Amino acid sequence: MDFKNLVETTVYKTLKSLKPFDLKTGLTSQRIIDASIPAGGRLFYNWATMPIGSEHLELLAQLAEEQQLVDKYQALVSGAIMNTGERRMVLHHLTRGNLLLGNQTVIADGEDKLAFYQEQLHRIEAFSKAVRDGNITGSTGKQIKTVVQIGIGGSDLGPRALYQALKGWCVHKNIDILEARFISNVDPDDPTDILTGLDFETTLFILVSKSGTTQETLTNQKFVLKAMRAQNIDGFNPASHVIAVTSKTSPLAKSNAVLDSFYIDDYIGGRYSSTSAVGAVVLSLAFGFDTFKRLLSGAHEADVNALEKDICKNAALLDALIGVYLRNVLQLPCTAVLPYAQALSRFPAHLQQLDMESNGKRVNRDGKLLNYPTGPVIFGEPGTNGQHSFYQHLHQGTDTIPIQFIGFLDSQRQNDVVTDGSTSQEKLIANLIAQIVAFACGKIDDNPNKQFPGNRYSSLLYAKRLTPETLGALLAHFENKVMFQGFIWNVNSFDQEGVQLGKTLAGKILSGGNSDEVLKAYIELFSRLK
Amino acid sequence: MDFKNLVETTVYKTLKSLKPFDLKTGLTSQRIIDASIPAGGRLFYNWATMPIGSEHLELLAQLAEEQQLVDKYQALVSGAIMNTGERRMVLHHLTRGNLLLGNQTVIADGEDKLAFYQEQLHRIEAFSKAVRDGNITGSTGKQIKTVVQIGIGGSDLGPRALYQALKGWCVHKNIDILEARFISNVDPDDPTDILTGLDFETTLFILVSKSGTTQETLTNQKFVLKAMRAQNIDGFNPASHVIAVTSKTSPLAKSNAVLDSFYIDDYIGGRYSSTSAVGAVVLSLAFGFDTFKRLLSGAHEADVNALEKDICKNAALLDALIGVYLRNVLQLPCTAVLPYAQALSRFPAHLQQLDMESNGKRVNRDGKLLNYPTGPVIFGEPGTNGQHSFYQHLHQGTDTIPIQFIGFLDSQRQNDVVTDGSTSQEKLIANLIAQIVAFACGKIDDNPNKQFPGNRYSSLLYAKRLTPETLGALLAHFENKVMFQGFIWNVNSFDQEGVQLGKTLAGKILSGGNSDEVLKAYIELFSRLK
Repeated sequence: MDFKNLVETTVYKTLKSLKPFDLKTGLTSQRIIDASIPAGGRLFYNWATMPIGSEHLELLAQLAEEQQLVDKYQALVSGAIMNTGERRMVLHHLTRGNLLLGNQTVIADGEDKLAFYQEQLHRIEAFSKAVRDGNITGSTGKQIKTVVQIGIGGSDLGPRALYQALKGWCVHKNIDILEARFISNVDPDDPTDILTGLDFETTLFILVSKSGTTQETLTNQKFVLKAMRAQNIDGFNPASHVIAVTSKTSPLAKSNAVLDSFYIDDYIGGRYSSTSAVGAVVLSLAFGFDTFKRLLSGAHEADVNALEKDICKNAALLDALIGVYLRNVLQLPCTAVLPYAQALSRFPAHLQQLDMESNGKRVNRDGKLLNYPTGPVIFGEPGTNGQHSFYQHLHQGTDTIPIQFIGFLDSQRQNDVVTDGSTSQEKLIANLIAQIVAFACGKIDDNPNKQFPGNRYSSLLYAKRLTPETLGALLAHFENKVMFQGFIWNVNSFDQEGVQLGKTLAGKILSGGNSDEVLKAYIELFSRLK
Repeated sequence: MDFKNLVETTVYKTLKSLKPFDLKTGLTSQRIIDASIPAGGRLFYNWATMPIGSEHLELLAQLAEEQQLVDKYQALVSGAIMNTGERRMVLHHLTRGNLLLGNQTVIADGEDKLAFYQEQLHRIEAFSKAVRDGNITGSTGKQIKTVVQIGIGGSDLGPRALYQALKGWCVHKNIDILEARFISNVDPDDPTDILTGLDFETTLFILVSKSGTTQETLTNQKFVLKAMRAQNIDGFNPASHVIAVTSKTSPLAKSNAVLDSFYIDDYIGGRYSSTSAVGAVVLSLAFGFDTFKRLLSGAHEADVNALEKDICKNAALLDALIGVYLRNVLQLPCTAVLPYAQALSRFPAHLQQLDMESNGKRVNRDGKLLNYPTGPVIFGEPGTNGQHSFYQHLHQGTDTIPIQFIGFLDSQRQNDVVTDGSTSQEKLIANLIAQIVAFACGKIDDNPNKQFPGNRYSSLLYAKRLTPETLGALLAHFENKVMFQGFIWNVNSFDQEGVQLGKTLAGKILSGGNSDEVLKAYIELFSRLK
């Protein structure tokens, strides 16, 4: 395999000179219908309102070829060391199915990794069933009704977004739901708030930390333990109310303070861990293992789709390539993610981590400084809320901010009202369509303040309904998009050295042993408030 | 008064040529201590880690002078027509106190506006007291325990952020709290979720729409009404469970379907309305009028601070000027807002609307196209959560993203645990300080992947604790910052024409009368999913 920087590819110079496709003259109904690609899990990707014409497609296909994008993906799932900085394999795809031919599998540390992930899944299935059936109860014999995940970053954002995204579907399917809450921040106001009104006897805490050393998570473990003890309930045993999701070698794994442990390993980064035990335990407890399994199958379908060599049939690959055109040729630094689904209200926060932590890199995989921009800033809120907030800027601001719209024909909970001749869901979709077209086509007006420039680019991920399968595909679509972009930029999307310096300095301050005058001045600034 | 575009000011060319101050060599303890400015409400603004030296300050002071920033603010509070597009006054400052000398006041539509806002406040005080004391009950005689705000955009984001920000403080002060919930999205899954488990007999709905015609809000009103009727409770009268916040002339104001109405007017835009009846009703019901009054007093202090002519004593003004240096000289398109306080978890979403809807404009106040960038993209999540998410990009991405940090010495709820020799709150502050210094100073390392470039700029808003007064000052600080930036850029920060086109097109789709082939193609795309 050949690893080269984007600007060193032969196709880059030609691509760089290619003007954007003009949507105001070129957006036809045929283009819209033709630009849809299945993305797995009954999800579709439509790129009609991206500044991409047939010439662009040809060059992007060449770029995919030259940077060997699908080959690198195949190498990754085969166990190549794609996390070069940390010298590790990258195996999150394996948590939802094997992408290798025949009975090939990936071996690491002398262990069949597919078997390992499946073993954990089986254990999670059995455990979650036992808890939901009341065969495993709290220490005072009461059935568990609430689960509280204690984790931060990838142990929080993904699982939290998925929990919110699945809840409405489960309500409508009459699936029994254990309420899930999440504690993440080291700010003591976070656990204090989440623990308020909690019935500890019917609560199970899930402590999630791969290393078993995350400052926030260990601190919040102590916080919860203190609160448990303060209850003074006869026969209550804290250890029966805590389970861990951690690596086999972490201090947590051997702890007596937990009822059971479920394992993850070093080959799955936090932001890619929602389909590992990190997401499996909390979601299987909350919604039952079957719901989680459906999510995995949707994610696997998207993973299979991403193997497709033809860029016009590979949704994640084309999304990635178009994103690079926007970022490197058109020099657009941000992307807005706008789901027209309240259930996805925290999904942009998950994507913000996934994308910005993976590709917010200024050195390539060999540690050489890059001379072109990499991962964009990701932000977003659900529509139609955002329409009444920051869309003004997207429509009439001085900068172009590309958009990833997400929408569903049907609501999740299937409860609606007709006003002025349409349902709320119909209004939601009408607004989504209206925005796509308004951004793309703009509007001429005699009053410049009422003009819309148009050619504000967007793509659309859409499906009939936000089911577990569709959600799984949506999750995997973005993971694969980010992976392909990392290959194009020649960065390592799987490490995060940028989080280390802050940790080190915070440790210095807390140990009190620092002599740095700048740190001291800030401590002084806060001390003066006392 | 003189209105000119930024690039037409005499100082701009000199400012443009000024290189950023180097933090890696210039950040001293003295600079840090000297760079703090009181911002009202016991809040401080510190700009030590911005790329600003004494030369910059001099030119920024000239810019403030030349663009007559404080004069324009004084004109605004005196009732000048600063919302030029809609030919309206801009009076949100008046909701928290009069900034005019002696007994001058602002008259509009033959009415003393200070008296009008105060009359509404008195009515809200009496009403909220009567509800909280049980003198006004639900229609079946039960005391109100929950309030649900139905509104979108400015009627949602600000009040929601403030509710979350004040809750912990009220819990610690043993103030009785009526739970508040919020319905905003036209997505039917939003009201369905929020209404789940609600006891309608003890719930009061607050319908918030200035025009009384907002599609989402009226739709959700019907949604709630349908749910109320479906309850079939003996003696239950829906109209006794709904109040309105609207303009006197709106259809809602005269409706028989509401128990009472509280008034706002055309001189306060949605995103500036948190200190008007839009925020006053829900927050006074939830936390008592006294808590809300404290918030107003903090906001007023910040408003008074913003009158200061010396830029080194005017926190909002200096913040605004530095922001323009970042945006127009250094060409940095985004700003991250990172509160180290879980209570402020939705505050960045409010600021996103405030800033992006106000200054996301490409024409000046006379409707002429601008040739320089205006308002930045605003995004953010609370620290330390963000550290485990997108900070990788902020530290080691290819772009510089300036940061507005917010932090407090003490927690709100004063409930904490000591682990490894420090409290969680101490860990939180240590992390905040560590991040400021890590971004500013960076780190040299033999391994380029472990290098931190430094000179990543931030400012810090800080206080002893997040009280109602401090929160009010924080809110007003950003409102005034955005206002000053609008003056510098010569845009109208108080209209939002960019939201209209989408509304029009959505209306076309819903009425079914559209013949636009592009809209039809998208409708077809979704229809195929059926």
